[in-house]
Amino acid sequence: MQFDNLSAHTLRDPHGYSGKWHFYPEDVLPMWVADMDFPISPAIREAIVERLQERIGYPQMSGDKQLLNRIIQHQQQHGLTGLAPENLLLTTSVVPAIYASVLALSSPGDEAITQVPVYHPFLFALHEHHRVARYNPLLRTASGWEIDFEQLESLVTPRTRLLMLCNPQNPTGRVFRRDELERLAEFALRHRLWVMSDELWADLIYEGKHIPIASLGPEIAQRTVTLSGPCKTYNTAGLGGGVAISHNRQILAALAQVSKGIGGHPNVLSMAAWRAALEHAQDWLQEVRAYLKVNRDFITSFIHQHLPQVGYLPPEGTYLAWLDFSRAPFAQDAHKVMLEQAKVGLNDGKIFGPQYQGWLRLNFATSRNLVQEALERMARVVQTVD
Amino acid sequence: MQFDNLSAHTLRDPHGYSGKWHFYPEDVLPMWVADMDFPISPAIREAIVERLQERIGYPQMSGDKQLLNRIIQHQQQHGLTGLAPENLLLTTSVVPAIYASVLALSSPGDEAITQVPVYHPFLFALHEHHRVARYNPLLRTASGWEIDFEQLESLVTPRTRLLMLCNPQNPTGRVFRRDELERLAEFALRHRLWVMSDELWADLIYEGKHIPIASLGPEIAQRTVTLSGPCKTYNTAGLGGGVAISHNRQILAALAQVSKGIGGHPNVLSMAAWRAALEHAQDWLQEVRAYLKVNRDFITSFIHQHLPQVGYLPPEGTYLAWLDFSRAPFAQDAHKVMLEQAKVGLNDGKIFGPQYQGWLRLNFATSRNLVQEALERMARVVQTVD
Repeated sequence: MQFDNLSAHTLRDPHGYSGKWHFYPEDVLPMWVADMDFPISPAIREAIVERLQERIGYPQMSGDKQLLNRIIQHQQQHGLTGLAPENLLLTTSVVPAIYASVLALSSPGDEAITQVPVYHPFLFALHEHHRVARYNPLLRTASGWEIDFEQLESLVTPRTRLLMLCNPQNPTGRVFRRDELERLAEFALRHRLWVMSDELWADLIYEGKHIPIASLGPEIAQRTVTLSGPCKTYNTAGLGGGVAISHNRQILAALAQVSKGIGGHPNVLSMAAWRAALEHAQDWLQEVRAYLKVNRDFITSFIHQHLPQVGYLPPEGTYLAWLDFSRAPFAQDAHKVMLEQAKVGLNDGKIFGPQYQGWLRLNFATSRNLVQEALERMARVVQTVD
Repeated sequence: MQFDNLSAHTLRDPHGYSGKWHFYPEDVLPMWVADMDFPISPAIREAIVERLQERIGYPQMSGDKQLLNRIIQHQQQHGLTGLAPENLLLTTSVVPAIYASVLALSSPGDEAITQVPVYHPFLFALHEHHRVARYNPLLRTASGWEIDFEQLESLVTPRTRLLMLCNPQNPTGRVFRRDELERLAEFALRHRLWVMSDELWADLIYEGKHIPIASLGPEIAQRTVTLSGPCKTYNTAGLGGGVAISHNRQILAALAQVSKGIGGHPNVLSMAAWRAALEHAQDWLQEVRAYLKVNRDFITSFIHQHLPQVGYLPPEGTYLAWLDFSRAPFAQDAHKVMLEQAKVGLNDGKIFGPQYQGWLRLNFATSRNLVQEALERMARVVQTVD
């Protein structure tokens, strides 16, 4: 298995390219920012090389039509149908699309509801632009993380404008079921909210089935912008590329308006890479997904055996493990302790919501031996401190 | 000469990649948007292919250090010295840096002064963000386009915050002399204006010497943000890439603040291409510049001989010819007449400033035979109408 042959020595490239591998000191295993340590699909590399045979001047500003059609086809496979190229707005990457959604679908002082913990740019976009984040904390139940619908209702005020959904959910790895999404859609419609649904992880799931919330019916489709992109699935974060999708073209026009100028234009090599990914990297993706699932199961079993103190529910999707150290004696310094004593670089839970001090996010998209090494380092520290 | 072997048939690529070649109908010669019809330097292609050997996950967010150092070295060659990597802010391309400058260095209702005609995104950024554009029209004199310093003074009000300079100047092709830049700097300092200096065309000049306004002294350096990028010089518009440079790190912090999230992050292949361009594409550039200069001279002589009615001053830099049809009988429809009757697709002058109805911008970065073909088509229409 090619993914087993990775070592920290080779991953820390001598050029300093990898943000993930060059952020922490050399003796730290970096298990933080969400990209994978695996090489990209050869099909993507080949497509870029082929694209370089043509000139690389300004592209058509509406985006490569063949790419747009591929994205439509891909969404169709997930059940989001009835899309034309006019229902797609390409962005330089997904974070700009999150910011554009916040800017386009709310005003300063407006309130946005989001399930937490959540991908931190959701919260940054709200805070930086003077919107108010209303937190709907996911509940830890015997069967897994669940949406607290009762608390959700209590959050609504006359200033509530936007529901920001992350599905599959970063960092918990939840893949929301149809019944949950139907309740969320009903909620959004009843309160006349806009919905931003970040579905970036849709193709990296192990259990369940990804359901785009906009696919549930024409009414919710009219109020939703769905965000997607190739970066997580195909490990091309350095190339960017994102898309905002909506059956409601006025939503897209509003996103385009707030992004104009400052948002830049699609990169021609990123578009070529994305198209190749959708067309020719499906075998690679299947292999990656299978490898990640075994990593996930390895973590589950390791934690049950060696770190039973740590709260953890196996993710149904994503390559992220969301770890609860909040009852550990070092909970206030969990990130620092893991960094300095265990020499494992994780994401600090507190960026995913104000109540997640003492939680850590671990990225397990690397060789199994490195996952094991990281967990063993962490277990030694936990056992020493306990 | 490789640049002589281009034909409309091959330039209109069958994939629909080129924005320039697929905007107008097939029988139109496109001489509009500013990219070149020449193939990129093989060194750039090779560097991208080599970069693809490494992973393409998230880069270090401060940007590739070797690229930053190359940019510093390149600015030094132009006389802009004393820069460290902290004085550079990479952007996804140059237009986002223009927008960020407007947003960071002025407030809604503030006024910005710019010489016109000018690269239209200057004006779009101001209008879209509710800043007021104050026009300082360049004067046509016997010796060429000159800045009207008297009118410039008259534009200043208590709301004036920003001077937006384009040097080398798009679309007139002026390369401002030291004495002109010194007067502009003195003006900006005396009125405590910020200066945004778009110097994107600095390496495509035929006469004169490019002087960064920020190089004139420490005081003006503290009030200036210089914008640069590889796109025009190396014909890589489809890859983006831009940089905001300032000795005043507070200016850069303000630009970073307004760009945050929505501005995206640098593309790793674009950074590799840019570095290769600065390191290994200098022979290519020299050849391109020589070819463009002969095109420029060809246009000058053609217009003198066959289109004496058309106002035109040979550009000292850029690959743009700024053509005055404002006294032609079809002045109100100059763009449409050239498009529909001459079958030449140009940029309509009115986007470069409100008083430039009847002017047209012609991009001559193509094979000489296509330049000649375009001019002959235009001349036939002018002679028919006259």
